[in-house]
Amino acid sequence: MTAHAFLPALAAEKLRAELRGILGASHVLTDADALPFLTDQRGQLTGRAVAVVRPANTAEVAQVVALCARHGTPIVPQGGNTGLCGGATPDDSGRAVLLSLARLNRIRSIDTENDSLVAEAGCVLAAVQAAANEAGRLFPLSLGSEGSCTIGGNLGTNAGGTQVLRYGNARQLTLGLEVVTPSGEIWDGLKGLRKDNTGYDLRDLYIGSEGTLGIITAATLRLFPQPAAERTAFVAFPSLPAAVEFLAVARIGLGESLTAFEVISSTCLDLVRRHIPQASFPGDAEERSAPWHALVEIGGSDDESATAQRLERVLANALERGLLRNAVIASSIAQSQALWHLRDALLGEALRRAGGATSHDISVPVSRIPAFIVEAEARLQRLVPGVQIYAFGHLGDGNLHYNALPPAELRSPQTHEQLRRLVHDAAVAQGGSISAEHGLGQVKNKELARYKSTVELQLMRAIKAALDPQGLMNPGKVLPPG
Amino acid sequence: MTAHAFLPALAAEKLRAELRGILGASHVLTDADALPFLTDQRGQLTGRAVAVVRPANTAEVAQVVALCARHGTPIVPQGGNTGLCGGATPDDSGRAVLLSLARLNRIRSIDTENDSLVAEAGCVLAAVQAAANEAGRLFPLSLGSEGSCTIGGNLGTNAGGTQVLRYGNARQLTLGLEVVTPSGEIWDGLKGLRKDNTGYDLRDLYIGSEGTLGIITAATLRLFPQPAAERTAFVAFPSLPAAVEFLAVARIGLGESLTAFEVISSTCLDLVRRHIPQASFPGDAEERSAPWHALVEIGGSDDESATAQRLERVLANALERGLLRNAVIASSIAQSQALWHLRDALLGEALRRAGGATSHDISVPVSRIPAFIVEAEARLQRLVPGVQIYAFGHLGDGNLHYNALPPAELRSPQTHEQLRRLVHDAAVAQGGSISAEHGLGQVKNKELARYKSTVELQLMRAIKAALDPQGLMNPGKVLPPG
Repeated sequence: MTAHAFLPALAAEKLRAELRGILGASHVLTDADALPFLTDQRGQLTGRAVAVVRPANTAEVAQVVALCARHGTPIVPQGGNTGLCGGATPDDSGRAVLLSLARLNRIRSIDTENDSLVAEAGCVLAAVQAAANEAGRLFPLSLGSEGSCTIGGNLGTNAGGTQVLRYGNARQLTLGLEVVTPSGEIWDGLKGLRKDNTGYDLRDLYIGSEGTLGIITAATLRLFPQPAAERTAFVAFPSLPAAVEFLAVARIGLGESLTAFEVISSTCLDLVRRHIPQASFPGDAEERSAPWHALVEIGGSDDESATAQRLERVLANALERGLLRNAVIASSIAQSQALWHLRDALLGEALRRAGGATSHDISVPVSRIPAFIVEAEARLQRLVPGVQIYAFGHLGDGNLHYNALPPAELRSPQTHEQLRRLVHDAAVAQGGSISAEHGLGQVKNKELARYKSTVELQLMRAIKAALDPQGLMNPGKVLPPG
Repeated sequence: MTAHAFLPALAAEKLRAELRGILGASHVLTDADALPFLTDQRGQLTGRAVAVVRPANTAEVAQVVALCARHGTPIVPQGGNTGLCGGATPDDSGRAVLLSLARLNRIRSIDTENDSLVAEAGCVLAAVQAAANEAGRLFPLSLGSEGSCTIGGNLGTNAGGTQVLRYGNARQLTLGLEVVTPSGEIWDGLKGLRKDNTGYDLRDLYIGSEGTLGIITAATLRLFPQPAAERTAFVAFPSLPAAVEFLAVARIGLGESLTAFEVISSTCLDLVRRHIPQASFPGDAEERSAPWHALVEIGGSDDESATAQRLERVLANALERGLLRNAVIASSIAQSQALWHLRDALLGEALRRAGGATSHDISVPVSRIPAFIVEAEARLQRLVPGVQIYAFGHLGDGNLHYNALPPAELRSPQTHEQLRRLVHDAAVAQGGSISAEHGLGQVKNKELARYKSTVELQLMRAIKAALDPQGLMNPGKVLPPG
C-alpha cells in the first residue's frame, strides 16, 4: 500500500513538494513513515493520505491549511491518535493530508492569579496536568489515555473522564481557543476571561466539532486549587436505585468535595476475578455479593482528618438508612490507587481478555439510569438469550460504559449491530445520548439520522456549510453522510 | 406615535389580522397597549412595532415566527425587558413584530435525582429560584433584576451576576434548550444530560446570541444542593493587588465554598455616604480609610460553626500576612443582607443620584485588574482632569462595573463618548472585553468593528447568514451594522 493511491500522481507530488517547501522535507511523511498515523489506536480503521504533515507552530498550520484550501485537498487533523470513533483517521480515498498537531506542544504561559494556562494543541494531557501541578494548581481533566492523548484532541471531542462530576467536561475547562479556519486564517480567541458576552460563542462551537469546522491550535485552560486532601471509598449497594439515591445524598452532604462517583456492576467484578485471578478486591464476601458498587472520591480544601470525617459521616448516615450495604475507605494512597486501578486498568483488561463484547458510551439523565438498566437488559435478553452485561461508568454524569457479551455461539457482526441498535434505542428512549464522551467520528455519525431530529441535522449542516464551504475539514466525520 | 408607522398600512393590518387569528385579539397589542414594551427599562431607547404579540406556548411562538418569515417581517423577542443594552427594543422603522415571551411562564418539570428543572423562557428568574428552593435545591443564578428579568432573557444574554465565581454564568447552568428557529420550526434540545457529544454545540450557540439566531422558548437548567450554611464578610484591603492576592489565597483555603468576591472602591463608599446619609457602614473609621473593600461570601455543605471557622481561619491568616487591613463578619442574616444591600441597592442609587457617570461593564483576566485600574485612571485623568472613578464588581470573574464621572462643567455627549472609548480601549489592551455580562444589544454592537478581528466578525456573520438567511431575527443587534 502506498499512502496516496488515488490522487493523480502528478498533482499529489506537486502538493507534497509545496508542503515540503513550507515545513521542510523531514516533516512531510509518506509511505512507511506515514503508516502509524493512518490506523486508529484500536487497529480497526485504516485510511490513506497524500502525506502526513507535522507543522511546528500555528503559522505553519495556517500555511498548510491555506495551501490545501487552494488545492481543494481535504485535511484530517490528529492529536495523540487515541480516539475511539475514528475521528482522526482519514478515509481510504488517499486524497487527504493528515495534519498532526504533535509538534505544537508548548505550554505558552501560566497565570496563577488568573488561574489559567495557555497550552498548544499537541500538548499531551499529562504534560498539561504536570505544568499546572508545578505551578501549584490543578488541571482536573483526567482520563485513561492521559499519557498519550493531546489537549487538542480532548477539546475536539469535548472529552469527559472521571472528574466531570466536580469540574465538568473539557468544554467547561476552557476559557479561550486559537483556531485555524478552513481558509487558513488564524482566529485568536485565547482571551483568559471568565466573562465575555460580545457575540456568538465560537469557542464552544469549535469544542466538540472534531476538526470538522477548523483546527484548534491552542487553548486557554482553567486551573483550580489543588485539593488539600483526598479520600476514596469502595461502596456496595443493595440496588442501583439505592446508588442513585445515595448519589443525591452524597451531593448534599459532600457538596463540591465529591469529585468522582464511578459505579461498577458486580458482573464486572466477577469478570475481573475470572480473567485476572491475581487481582485483589476490597471488602469481604458479603460486600462482593452486592449487585452494584461504586468508587466514591472526595477532595477539597479540608485537611486529611476533616476530609475523612466528612466522608465517614455521609457513609454512616446512608448505611443507617439502608442506602448502602457496606463501604471500605482506602487508608493509604496505595489502597486508593489500587481501587482506581481496578476500575481503570483491570476492568478494561478483563473485557479485552473476555473478547467479543459490544461496547457503548451512553448517557441518560441520572434519574433514568435504573430504568435504562432494567429496560435494556430485558430487551437484550429477548434478542440474545444468555447475553452478559458488564456496565460501569460515571453515575454522577449519567454516563455508562455499557458492554454486552453474547454467548460465544451467538456472536456475529449482525448480532453486534443488533445489540448496538438496541442499546442506543434504549438510551434515546430514556432521553439519552448515543455518545456521552467519545464523540462521533466516522463510527457513530451514521446513526445520527436515526436519533437526531431533521431540524437539528439541518442546523448542523447549515453551520458546516457556512464555516467550511468547501467541505475540506475532516470530511466524513460528525455529520452523517448524504 | 402609533406603533406601526412605516409599514404600508394595508400590509400591517393584514399581518395583525393573521396574528390575531393565531393568538386571539387580546394577545396582539397595538398603540397605547404596546408602548410599555417598546421602550427599554432605562428609558433611553424607544422603538416601534407592527404589533406586540404575546403567544402562550412554544407552538404559538412557532406559528408566529413562521408567519413573520412568510411576510419577511422582523421579530424582536423580549423577556422581562430589563436588558441594559437595548437588545429587546425594536428599531424605529415600525416594521418588526415584538414577541413577548412573558406568557410562557411554566416550570414544566423538576427532577431532583437528575438535579435539573425545565423552565419556559418567560419564567421570572426569582420564580425559577423559588421552584428550585421548594424542591430542596438551589438554582444559583442571581442578579439585581431577578424579580422581573426572565430566564429566556438571562440565557439570550448569558447573564452573570454575583455567584459566577462558584457556579458560572447562565451558560454553565444550562443543560438543554428548546428553540424556535427563524423559519418557525421547533428544535427540541431539552435533554437533561450532563454529557452528550453528538454533534455541534447548538445550545451554547443560542445562549448569548440575544435572539438573533432563533428564539429560546424553554431550557433545562442545572440545580445544586442548597448550602447548609453561609457567611458574609466585609474586608478592607491596603491595595487592589493585595485584594487579588487574597482572592487566590481564599480560593485555595475556601475551595468551592467561596461563592462571591465583590470588590468596592472606597470612592464608591464615599459616594453612598454623600448621597444616602442614613446608610450605615460596617467597620470603623480605619477600615473605611482603606482604598478597596470586598464583600466575600462562603457557603457549602459545612454547618454554621464549621463555615464560620473556615472563613475566620482564612481571614486571620491573610491579616497576619498583611493582605488585608481589617474584616468584619456578619453575625446574622440581617447583617449579611445589609452588606448585600449596600453593594446592590445603595451603590446603584447613589450613582443615580450623582448622575452623569459613564458606566462600563468590562472584564480582564483577574491578574490584570490592578494594571487596568492604574492605567485607565491615569489616562482618564489626562483626558478629563478631575474625573471621579467609581469601580466595583466581581473580582473573582475579572469583571468590573467601572463608572467615570466628569466634573459637572466638563460633562457632554462628546466627553461621554471619549470616556467610553478610553475605558474600552484600556480593557481590551489588557486582554479584556467591552461587555462582560450585559451583552451587546444595539448599544455596544457598533464597537465590535474596533475590538474584534476581521476573522472573528466574518465567522459571526457566516453563522448569522447560515441560521437566519432572511436576517429577520432581532435585526440590528449583536452584529455591527454593515
